[in-house]
Amino acid sequence: MIYNTCMRWKLPILCFLLEIAMIVLFGVFVRYDFEADPHWREYKKLKGITSDLENEYYYRYSSFQDVHVMIFVGFGFLMTFLKMYGFGSVGFNFLLAAFGIQWAILMQGWFHSFVGGKIYITVTSLINADFCVASVCIAFGGVLGKVSPVQVLLMTLFQVTLFAVNEYILLNKLHVIDAGGSMTIHTFGAYFGLTVTWILRRPHLSQRNDKEGSEYHSDLFSMIGTLFLWMFWPSFNSAISHHGDAQHRAAINTYCSLAACVLTTVAISSLVNKKGKLEMVHIQNATLAGGVAVGTAAEMFLTTYGSLIVGFLCGIISTLGFAYLSPFLSAKINLQDTCGIHNLHGMPGIVGGIVGAVTAACATIGVYTEAGLVEMFGFEGDYAWRTPSVQGGYQAAGIFVSLAFAFVGGTLVGLLLKLPIWGDPSDENCFDDGVYWELPQEESEDKHYITHIPEIPKEIDKV
Amino acid sequence: MIYNTCMRWKLPILCFLLEIAMIVLFGVFVRYDFEADPHWREYKKLKGITSDLENEYYYRYSSFQDVHVMIFVGFGFLMTFLKMYGFGSVGFNFLLAAFGIQWAILMQGWFHSFVGGKIYITVTSLINADFCVASVCIAFGGVLGKVSPVQVLLMTLFQVTLFAVNEYILLNKLHVIDAGGSMTIHTFGAYFGLTVTWILRRPHLSQRNDKEGSEYHSDLFSMIGTLFLWMFWPSFNSAISHHGDAQHRAAINTYCSLAACVLTTVAISSLVNKKGKLEMVHIQNATLAGGVAVGTAAEMFLTTYGSLIVGFLCGIISTLGFAYLSPFLSAKINLQDTCGIHNLHGMPGIVGGIVGAVTAACATIGVYTEAGLVEMFGFEGDYAWRTPSVQGGYQAAGIFVSLAFAFVGGTLVGLLLKLPIWGDPSDENCFDDGVYWELPQEESEDKHYITHIPEIPKEIDKV
Amino acid sequence: MIYNTCMRWKLPILCFLLEIAMIVLFGVFVRYDFEADPHWREYKKLKGITSDLENEYYYRYSSFQDVHVMIFVGFGFLMTFLKMYGFGSVGFNFLLAAFGIQWAILMQGWFHSFVGGKIYITVTSLINADFCVASVCIAFGGVLGKVSPVQVLLMTLFQVTLFAVNEYILLNKLHVIDAGGSMTIHTFGAYFGLTVTWILRRPHLSQRNDKEGSEYHSDLFSMIGTLFLWMFWPSFNSAISHHGDAQHRAAINTYCSLAACVLTTVAISSLVNKKGKLEMVHIQNATLAGGVAVGTAAEMFLTTYGSLIVGFLCGIISTLGFAYLSPFLSAKINLQDTCGIHNLHGMPGIVGGIVGAVTAACATIGVYTEAGLVEMFGFEGDYAWRTPSVQGGYQAAGIFVSLAFAFVGGTLVGLLLKLPIWGDPSDENCFDDGVYWELPQEESEDKHYITHIPEIPKEIDKV
Repeated sequence: MIYNTCMRWKLPILCFLLEIAMIVLFGVFVRYDFEADPHWREYKKLKGITSDLENEYYYRYSSFQDVHVMIFVGFGFLMTFLKMYGFGSVGFNFLLAAFGIQWAILMQGWFHSFVGGKIYITVTSLINADFCVASVCIAFGGVLGKVSPVQVLLMTLFQVTLFAVNEYILLNKLHVIDAGGSMTIHTFGAYFGLTVTWILRRPHLSQRNDKEGSEYHSDLFSMIGTLFLWMFWPSFNSAISHHGDAQHRAAINTYCSLAACVLTTVAISSLVNKKGKLEMVHIQNATLAGGVAVGTAAEMFLTTYGSLIVGFLCGIISTLGFAYLSPFLSAKINLQDTCGIHNLHGMPGIVGGIVGAVTAACATIGVYTEAGLVEMFGFEGDYAWRTPSVQGGYQAAGIFVSLAFAFVGGTLVGLLLKLPIWGDPSDENCFDDGVYWELPQEESEDKHYITHIPEIPKEIDKV
Repeated sequence: MIYNTCMRWKLPILCFLLEIAMIVLFGVFVRYDFEADPHWREYKKLKGITSDLENEYYYRYSSFQDVHVMIFVGFGFLMTFLKMYGFGSVGFNFLLAAFGIQWAILMQGWFHSFVGGKIYITVTSLINADFCVASVCIAFGGVLGKVSPVQVLLMTLFQVTLFAVNEYILLNKLHVIDAGGSMTIHTFGAYFGLTVTWILRRPHLSQRNDKEGSEYHSDLFSMIGTLFLWMFWPSFNSAISHHGDAQHRAAINTYCSLAACVLTTVAISSLVNKKGKLEMVHIQNATLAGGVAVGTAAEMFLTTYGSLIVGFLCGIISTLGFAYLSPFLSAKINLQDTCGIHNLHGMPGIVGGIVGAVTAACATIGVYTEAGLVEMFGFEGDYAWRTPSVQGGYQAAGIFVSLAFAFVGGTLVGLLLKLPIWGDPSDENCFDDGVYWELPQEESEDKHYITHIPEIPKEIDKV
Repeated sequence: MIYNTCMRWKLPILCFLLEIAMIVLFGVFVRYDFEADPHWREYKKLKGITSDLENEYYYRYSSFQDVHVMIFVGFGFLMTFLKMYGFGSVGFNFLLAAFGIQWAILMQGWFHSFVGGKIYITVTSLINADFCVASVCIAFGGVLGKVSPVQVLLMTLFQVTLFAVNEYILLNKLHVIDAGGSMTIHTFGAYFGLTVTWILRRPHLSQRNDKEGSEYHSDLFSMIGTLFLWMFWPSFNSAISHHGDAQHRAAINTYCSLAACVLTTVAISSLVNKKGKLEMVHIQNATLAGGVAVGTAAEMFLTTYGSLIVGFLCGIISTLGFAYLSPFLSAKINLQDTCGIHNLHGMPGIVGGIVGAVTAACATIGVYTEAGLVEMFGFEGDYAWRTPSVQGGYQAAGIFVSLAFAFVGGTLVGLLLKLPIWGDPSDENCFDDGVYWELPQEESEDKHYITHIPEIPKEIDKV
């Protein structure tokens, strides 16, 4: 098989085509919602609103910025742990997210805020677009280092599309609650990514490629990603919750779950190492599983100790996944999951869906008040007949629908990306920035990037 | 003395015990406060509140996130300056803070929001927990590189406990103002940490351990921590101030003090170097002293030039401390203060307490208005008799109480941590991640991780 | 020419003089505005304000923090791409910004909020001071690596002064709209910096100095700066917009423009490379041009697709600038623009001014409502006679005024900085931290810092 990794025409043409399409579609469809439109002034008067603070902007903007940091710095740097793939990690994540948010605004707009032929957007649309892209960032973690930027953009295009459809079915047809996206973002994103990863598996890629490791400083860069994800996850899970107590509760629950998760991650990481030493990959990833697993239930009355329990369990599950399940899947079915997304997003995502279903099924009027129950679960209109236990059933169904979308969609997209025309790297060039990036001080095309050996060798030669 | 640094059972068991205790105690005690509870809806009606924005969440959440960043990225990365201890710096700081915030919610809850047998928490509880943990992060800076994660967790357990008691005495018994924690966080944290550090001193640890230095990139990682601390310190000092003008003023004052501090730090750093060159350790640390030193007075009427003066002085004091006092204390009493917490938090913390006392003593009705004076200093109920000058006296007493708690508590905790059963590293393994972390590309247990080998050129020359 | 780069007396004396001047001037002039003063309580009553949230602090503070991050982490780390100048990039940027914000509060205060002999400051003053300093950070990018910290501080002193005058003329005399500063910040900052850079040009500095390159990890540090600038740019352009819809719209427009910009940057970067590989310098810089170019028009009714088009074009222009124009200018007129500020801030800034002028000229009552048009463009009082097309003309004039200030001011400041008394480095010491910083493990003044040499020793052994 001949690998032509030259991106000179493929990538520019694809970028231009996609961006021009975005401009045309935004021109036709996207408009400012009334809160971002100069007519807001008249709307305020009409509704008797006296303060500009009632503009949704002031409720959501700082959450939006936190989520934005998670997508670009969080996911971007989390993946820089690979010693020779830092540019690709942070750079391609930047590219896919910048395209993905535009396409997500359109796709989600058509499904959720399409009125009179126009999509009306607010800061909440920006948050939702970031959410959608988070699922692509997750999937990217599975194929990291083994695909070309063209493949990354194509995957983004299709995954955002599928995400929007799946989200529409869950939120509008099953009428499911999933404000932090355990199902729509994490379960779907992870299993979609794993399916694509499996279809693109490379039989001859050595189980332990030399370049597929970290080095001291790349692990520290990765911790920047980890910490920004960890710190801002309470904002993620509360970003689109109902105003007031729900948003407040979602932040507290996520905070608790994440804190507990750190302790059990450390415990298991030490326990599974024969000398009791901690592994950086566990700390970088499994500490975040607690945030994933309260994605659905964070705004519900999960209670603080309930959140601690979820975090406690997910730190264990996720770390054990890294220690035992990943090597097992790699050996048995050749699943080459670069970042271990199955452990960080896959299993904890499913746990999150289950926790959400159980928490919903246990809801009572005593805890939520009658109005609160209606507001939280939307038991009104066509859904007025639902009881908490019925809702729990629908929530559970949401997990399966998300999995189905992930597997079927992932298969189709994976097969498309397998076509030998997208410029993916050869096995020996996987996990190496030199393929798609002009590296500093690189001397020839064949010479692989050797981290740092600045002037000395030359002087030695002279000696 | 035999060092068994294997963490395989000690660390996991301790983590599990602590986290299970947290779950049980949260289950028994912790509940959502009304603003995070679905009954918020009814409360709003009852109180005639028309906007969800009046939920404390919207007043405090973005400050909370800034403080959160300071604890995890700020303190975590600040300590990564050590060339071979980056994992331990950011990783153990992560571990201690994740446990500490849970235990702080309980300890502070019992003292401050314990009603009818329950602790009711809001976003403000999360900020206070972060504050409490900040004092542990400070103390950790003193013992950095010389303790095991088990010791770190035990220190956190006891220090959080002592912090909460000291804070209770200051705020509720002495009725002292300390919104940014010059006394409760910095003075207590630093002198507690220094006492523990001194008790754990290692006579044979060379004054200038090879590994106790920085390298080029580790210094840049450290600057990430410095800058996030510096930028978000205005949020730190204003996070729990009264709504409105007090919070606004606290942010402005802190901003001014920090800005001034940078200039005098640079000046002194250049002045004390024989070639006039700047030292990174000064820039990384002393630039922050201005934030520490307005912790108590930031929300008071310190005035902007008053803030500048405080920052001006503390940049000088702190840099001189790094240049002269630290080496002196190290030589004379063998105080092995890894991060120089005495210079960054100790002395500036005391200055902050004094500035607070003086500013309080100088308060007048003309400046604060009568209602403002009552609100700022709580001159009501049992304290209605207090005058500003009396308040100033109590403020000053707060410094001594904090110091007493630090020395007595630090001695007890230091003696406990000195027991030879917690797996601390041998002298030659201090400041080396290889003891507790599985390092990338590590080849054998004996071989220490050698990141970079800057000395080679010399050997070449010899050849 | 003899270079005396010793900073021992020059730098400390300058720092002390400047800071003492700040303290005196703040003491004489700066006061808390009523929203940060204890009399806020009385003001609220007087105005019938019922919520503390109406304090400007709550409208602006989180935007302020985002802008603050852009100045200190964003600009600071963006410039760390140089392999041996990381300390100088982040450290001198820290120094100049810390001084600059103080001086900017005074200068802007005298021009904009000088009432009864006093300057009254709020959180908005802090944002404006950060804005002013942004223009200095930009100019610093031009001279990066070739000037001493003394020169940096002097440049800051004069540039902030000129900025404030130029801003006053634009906003108060031409009555121009420029909330995100395409003209006042970017155009002025870039061309001022380029003029200084050109005057300080060094004929014998090799076109391709060995040290003027990046290395793998310095490029990753730089991406931290890029991403924080990129993510928070919507906050930058909306930070001082009118409350409500204008602020909301400014954030959305900036978000759109930046997203589009990433795709065309990637496209052109790949296209101009003979192997189709991406260059990190493009991704680090040109992706931000979209934010620069909607600085003036972001709060206007630019529409989302209009924003996409602006970002689309600026990604192209900026990347082409890096690929072709910079080398051309370097060869032809010896313009040694270290960070390529002409491509990132210069050309996109002018584009931003033009986009603003056109968008203003196209404003209609139908789109803005009558009251909205008055509010947006300030068509009241002395300016009630203006029509949108007239406003467009004045907007365009603003570009020329900014350019004139930049060229004339830059020439004067450049000539001053050219005096051989400020301790600038010799040609061979440019781009080398060793001149002004005590480097870790540095052994002698002559020996340049050699970053990492990992594998070599083994090879040597074999020899």
